Amino acid sequence: MGRIVMKFGGTSVADLDRIRAVSRLVETEVRAGHEVAVVVSAMSGETNRLVALVDALDADRIGDEDRHGGAIHDEYDSIVASGEQVTSGLLAIALRRRGIRARSWLGWQIPLRTDKAHSKARIAEIESSAIGPSLSAGNVAVVAGFQGVSDDGRISTLGRGGSDTSAVALAVALKADRCDIYTDVDGIYTTDPRIVPEARRLHRIAFEEMLELASLGAKVLQVRSVELAMNYNLPIRVLTSMADDGQPNPGTLVCHEDETMEERVVSGVAYSRDEAQITLLRLKDKPGMVAKVCKAMSDAGVIVDMIVQGISRSDNAANMTFTVGKRDLETALSALEKAKSDIGFEGIKHDSGVTKVSVVGIGMRSHTGVAQTMFEALAEKGINIEVIATSEIKISVLIDSEYTELAVRALHSAFELHAQTAPRVSAP
Amino acid sequence: MGRIVMKFGGTSVADLDRIRAVSRLVETEVRAGHEVAVVVSAMSGETNRLVALVDALDADRIGDEDRHGGAIHDEYDSIVASGEQVTSGLLAIALRRRGIRARSWLGWQIPLRTDKAHSKARIAEIESSAIGPSLSAGNVAVVAGFQGVSDDGRISTLGRGGSDTSAVALAVALKADRCDIYTDVDGIYTTDPRIVPEARRLHRIAFEEMLELASLGAKVLQVRSVELAMNYNLPIRVLTSMADDGQPNPGTLVCHEDETMEERVVSGVAYSRDEAQITLLRLKDKPGMVAKVCKAMSDAGVIVDMIVQGISRSDNAANMTFTVGKRDLETALSALEKAKSDIGFEGIKHDSGVTKVSVVGIGMRSHTGVAQTMFEALAEKGINIEVIATSEIKISVLIDSEYTELAVRALHSAFELHAQTAPRVSAP
Repeated sequence: MGRIVMKFGGTSVADLDRIRAVSRLVETEVRAGHEVAVVVSAMSGETNRLVALVDALDADRIGDEDRHGGAIHDEYDSIVASGEQVTSGLLAIALRRRGIRARSWLGWQIPLRTDKAHSKARIAEIESSAIGPSLSAGNVAVVAGFQGVSDDGRISTLGRGGSDTSAVALAVALKADRCDIYTDVDGIYTTDPRIVPEARRLHRIAFEEMLELASLGAKVLQVRSVELAMNYNLPIRVLTSMADDGQPNPGTLVCHEDETMEERVVSGVAYSRDEAQITLLRLKDKPGMVAKVCKAMSDAGVIVDMIVQGISRSDNAANMTFTVGKRDLETALSALEKAKSDIGFEGIKHDSGVTKVSVVGIGMRSHTGVAQTMFEALAEKGINIEVIATSEIKISVLIDSEYTELAVRALHSAFELHAQTAPRVSAP
Repeated sequence: MGRIVMKFGGTSVADLDRIRAVSRLVETEVRAGHEVAVVVSAMSGETNRLVALVDALDADRIGDEDRHGGAIHDEYDSIVASGEQVTSGLLAIALRRRGIRARSWLGWQIPLRTDKAHSKARIAEIESSAIGPSLSAGNVAVVAGFQGVSDDGRISTLGRGGSDTSAVALAVALKADRCDIYTDVDGIYTTDPRIVPEARRLHRIAFEEMLELASLGAKVLQVRSVELAMNYNLPIRVLTSMADDGQPNPGTLVCHEDETMEERVVSGVAYSRDEAQITLLRLKDKPGMVAKVCKAMSDAGVIVDMIVQGISRSDNAANMTFTVGKRDLETALSALEKAKSDIGFEGIKHDSGVTKVSVVGIGMRSHTGVAQTMFEALAEKGINIEVIATSEIKISVLIDSEYTELAVRALHSAFELHAQTAPRVSAP
């Protein structure tokens, strides 16, 4: 007996049959005696349909710039949030037809308060004084994910994928015992199974590892939702909504690290193709040059990821290489051109055909030799490393994108991730 | 310079191009210096799509009756109201792209308060303290029609077609000078132009006449919206949203009667095929029998319209004929069968192949001979009258549906409605 939050993404509620399947998963938890809040996304495809309507009108331009009516994020939010509104109502109906008391809750009804940064709002506060007693009275709360209300009484949205975050935040606010994220995969894997068929589902993974994997390209959970769960020590279970009724569906538990996790040196291999590499040529090698580059990027709203500065040469100049998100490349290049004389470099090279491959594991804190194993495995396959970045629990390398699959397979094999056996655990 | 409410139905906002056309109509009023609130329906087809989703889930039945989760009107409302939510946001964007300050208002944001009769709620109160100052400050208010919020904080809807009513109610609350109802016809006609090509658009029509016409089958305006406008003496203009930009679009003004209207004997001919006729055979002719029949119908939720009692016969029994809505026929018949011994009759005949044809005009108050002209015109075409009902400003007859078009044409011609010339007037 506990209180749990269950979250279902767009593919899990894609049509009426999927919504019925979700209602059966919810019923199982209710019949087990749990108090249940369910967070739902829009039916898959629906958000895209609504965004396309907005974009088409937004593109209308008449007369001079001044006549434009300005930003439209507030209306975007009101329009797009209707997708989750529909799903929450439909699931409430499906539950009632299974004899379960349920009602939908929209962001403004809870209320889930956010700031005014429409279309990418951050949660300020979740009121539990209405929804909490409703749960205690035995009603399932079906919550429209991804949305809240700003303090001027308008609908706000958390940005695409914000449903994970709102589910975890709701679980924190409701003092839930666990947040179950249902998705189209059955857990967190040692790496992408499309590249490595031997990839293994992890039974447990530490918050810190999950945070690194999510940041490094694993798309199962959003970074913000993992951060939030870690801060409040709320276990997250990742599991599939596509399982046949009645089949075991253990998923992966994301929780605080324990001893068994620390025995693993590496937990997973992640990769991200959304990278672009920029090299500034013959940069004047004096103090403050790197800071100037970083400031130019930050002023342009571009996040710099990996940085490496080349060896100083006799003419007191060096090359500096760094990576940015692929979609920020154009912005970054034009900002650099503008600041060229101020920063002081002679040329720019760039390459968007690069991939960041990373190994992650909290065991790296107490095990040495991970870097050496990694570099040897890559060298053995003839893969050249362009840039290296490390943290306490991860090592990332930038390589030519053509070698992505080869590198991921080599690392998965070098760290024997297919063979590792973690103890089977059940969720709390 | 005044304050006006403009209302657009589903076909007027059916797609992005129609929404752009609406934004131009709104712009014209704004540039003329008016304060404007716009009430919009869902894009046509959208409400049907959402209702179909609800109906499919609602039809799910598992186990015994007791396990059903009960009524779902609250969730129906939350789902279906999303249609207007989308349109209001889209029109606000289209207006901003024309350089006009605008924002959407949902029912709960105004708030437009209703009772808890979900899916057929009645308006309790419209708060003007937020939307009024926004209008005064020069913002167009784009209001999602058809929806409100009940006092338990749930979304409610006014039932299908409730957008007219919410537009008129909003105009009353905002002390607007006029409510313009844009639709797919360009005004109120002397009769259905599909039946009588010579039918003429009326420049003005009295509230009382419009109320009768709407009740008698004319589908342009909802009965409740006309009642409300009449009670508050709010002029309604009915006009087309399909006019080419810049073309005159005078429509029909619905307002309090004036002298010119009184000179017309008959303003229009209406018909309704949604009728069914029930005859109780050999009813015991003693006091209270009609009341018993009416009570049986009222208990079953069936509204009785026209009633006629046949001539008493020697055996102290009579036939009684009355009409009900066609969709209520089955309910009415089974209620009558149940009450057969209590009421005391020997048999039931029924016929759903009947049409009610009516002539309406406030001039009938002071002109005699309307009934005679009507009955003669029908007799001349060999049309048999089954039942007659009259009020101060209308005469209705029930006839065989096969004669509908013939009767409408005969009456339109007999009262010379094609030739009548009303003075051209402009809206206030």
